[in-house]
Amino acid sequence: MKLAILFGGVSYEHEISIVSAIALKKVLSGPLDFIFLDAEGGFWHIPADKMKSNHFSTGAYKKNDPLALGRGGFKKRGLLKAKRLEADTVLNLVHGGQGEDGTVASLLEFFDIPYIGPRREASVVSANKWLTKLYAEGVEMPAVDWQLLRIDGPRALDFDLPVIVKPLRLGSSIGVSVVRKPEELDFALDVAFEFDDEVLVEPFIEGIAEYNLAGCRVGDEWVIGRIEAPRKKEFLDFDQKYLDFGRTEGVQEADIDATLKADLIDAFKKVYAHTFEGALIRCDFFVASGEILLNEINPIPGSMANYLFDDFAGVLERLSSHLPKPRAIRPDYAYIEKVQSAKGPKIGNG
Amino acid sequence: MKLAILFGGVSYEHEISIVSAIALKKVLSGPLDFIFLDAEGGFWHIPADKMKSNHFSTGAYKKNDPLALGRGGFKKRGLLKAKRLEADTVLNLVHGGQGEDGTVASLLEFFDIPYIGPRREASVVSANKWLTKLYAEGVEMPAVDWQLLRIDGPRALDFDLPVIVKPLRLGSSIGVSVVRKPEELDFALDVAFEFDDEVLVEPFIEGIAEYNLAGCRVGDEWVIGRIEAPRKKEFLDFDQKYLDFGRTEGVQEADIDATLKADLIDAFKKVYAHTFEGALIRCDFFVASGEILLNEINPIPGSMANYLFDDFAGVLERLSSHLPKPRAIRPDYAYIEKVQSAKGPKIGNG
Repeated sequence: MKLAILFGGVSYEHEISIVSAIALKKVLSGPLDFIFLDAEGGFWHIPADKMKSNHFSTGAYKKNDPLALGRGGFKKRGLLKAKRLEADTVLNLVHGGQGEDGTVASLLEFFDIPYIGPRREASVVSANKWLTKLYAEGVEMPAVDWQLLRIDGPRALDFDLPVIVKPLRLGSSIGVSVVRKPEELDFALDVAFEFDDEVLVEPFIEGIAEYNLAGCRVGDEWVIGRIEAPRKKEFLDFDQKYLDFGRTEGVQEADIDATLKADLIDAFKKVYAHTFEGALIRCDFFVASGEILLNEINPIPGSMANYLFDDFAGVLERLSSHLPKPRAIRPDYAYIEKVQSAKGPKIGNG
Repeated sequence: MKLAILFGGVSYEHEISIVSAIALKKVLSGPLDFIFLDAEGGFWHIPADKMKSNHFSTGAYKKNDPLALGRGGFKKRGLLKAKRLEADTVLNLVHGGQGEDGTVASLLEFFDIPYIGPRREASVVSANKWLTKLYAEGVEMPAVDWQLLRIDGPRALDFDLPVIVKPLRLGSSIGVSVVRKPEELDFALDVAFEFDDEVLVEPFIEGIAEYNLAGCRVGDEWVIGRIEAPRKKEFLDFDQKYLDFGRTEGVQEADIDATLKADLIDAFKKVYAHTFEGALIRCDFFVASGEILLNEINPIPGSMANYLFDDFAGVLERLSSHLPKPRAIRPDYAYIEKVQSAKGPKIGNG
């Protein structure tokens, strides 16, 4: 397997994606291609030794080779004809925006490019936090209670304070606030509505236990990394999230009993289901009064949560050989031919 | 407005889409571009006088000009440089498959091409019948009861016969059967599993009243066509659906009382919500014991349900000037620059 890491993208997490790609360069030793998706929608082939953050912030990447989407892979214009990149599998590392909302999945599928990452349905149900709640109900996974507010609708809360306010379609804590006093509500909603016409409000549960699990299914087997109890913080602010996306150092498994561990793993499998096949995802769970609640699905976790796996490269290798294959559909013209042989070529008024 | 009709696509409804495009040529008198998406994923510019079904079934379209996706519109290779098609708005008429599952929406959005049709989220929640049920719950719209079966799971039914069995992600009645006797169940499921790993089973309600409504929101205004009571049939088989997709003759509004009419319109608006903005959709409802139940959402109805509108061209014209605009996101490098000015260029290990 030769992997191409696709990163960047038009999103608030553009920079995070760069940091994440640099982290993966550190932890993956094999040969890698790096494909940068810039803010104008252009693709660029970045040499490994240029994978430094200022290569992108200064615009120096524009001296590298542009790439185009082509059937079966990204293509580079050659002297005589377009040449395909060697990589056989793309790792979608475009955090947020186009990477997680299903745009990148659609592009890669349309052009028959094999990829690790959430498929379109998985992307849509995890990028939109309201659909995540509906999806959780569908797979019978309890989640934190919620209410949906619209930018042009009433602002009456269904819950007592404190609540947490989240733009519906953004990741990485952007536009998120905890509201403790009634007079803070309007400002928090105004901020969130800067980013989305719809906002999710949830009761904020002080000091709740949180556990993160990352993993994937390869064929009939589950690969699930060490369970992490993330640092206790209300929620990570944007700067902390950035640091988080550059993580490469392994973490210790959370100190929890065997029952909770087994229950968390079951919860992960329930959420992953068949929907997330082809992706290595991270699920963040809360545990309150013994009940496990889904908080969030990260279908493209920061630095792919590499720090939770002993053999991260091996996980990607195995996953890449078990990617979901869409059923082949070969359109034919059976109906048109039938009608034409019966009536002569009369369909169409041209 | 100059409209480009995008049709074809890799789906079981490839031919239907051709029939539908030919029907639209009949009902839209203004200048139109026709863009054919063939079974290999190639785009072709079809002259209006070639819009006959055998132009596609014989492969003659390959003598027309190939098109490429380009920023802001489809492009044709010129003698010196690529030339953009004149059309300013694409009408997504790719029924089923790529057209309705969010692939086409993603391609058009990625390339900043304005289009009439369901957005990605709308596509995903209508193409997957299980997500449609969850979505209906989310917008508090009652739907027919249901159960999900997987290809590798048990086949025990939650309902008494008769039931209707549907592959999860196909439209146009493909793979759908009504099961009346226990001995018919396995065959019906085998057929459905030919098309999808997941199958939806619903109680089949004999002789239920059915009503179809098509429409869209343009700005703050609703445009809803005549309510149709479709011909009484168990369900339309594939040949009948084909004929249906070529419809251009206006139909009479169903003979229903004012209360039911108002309730059906309310139900339509509930389903359309904000999710389907930018699209002209058709919703099929059942009415049982006075209750309205959502049966199906068709985000790209056959021949765009033109026959339900008095001024169909005007509806498209108005819709095209009220397409949803994604919020502009301009990635910046504020974080990387901050880190670099504090620490020197140390991010990245190259």
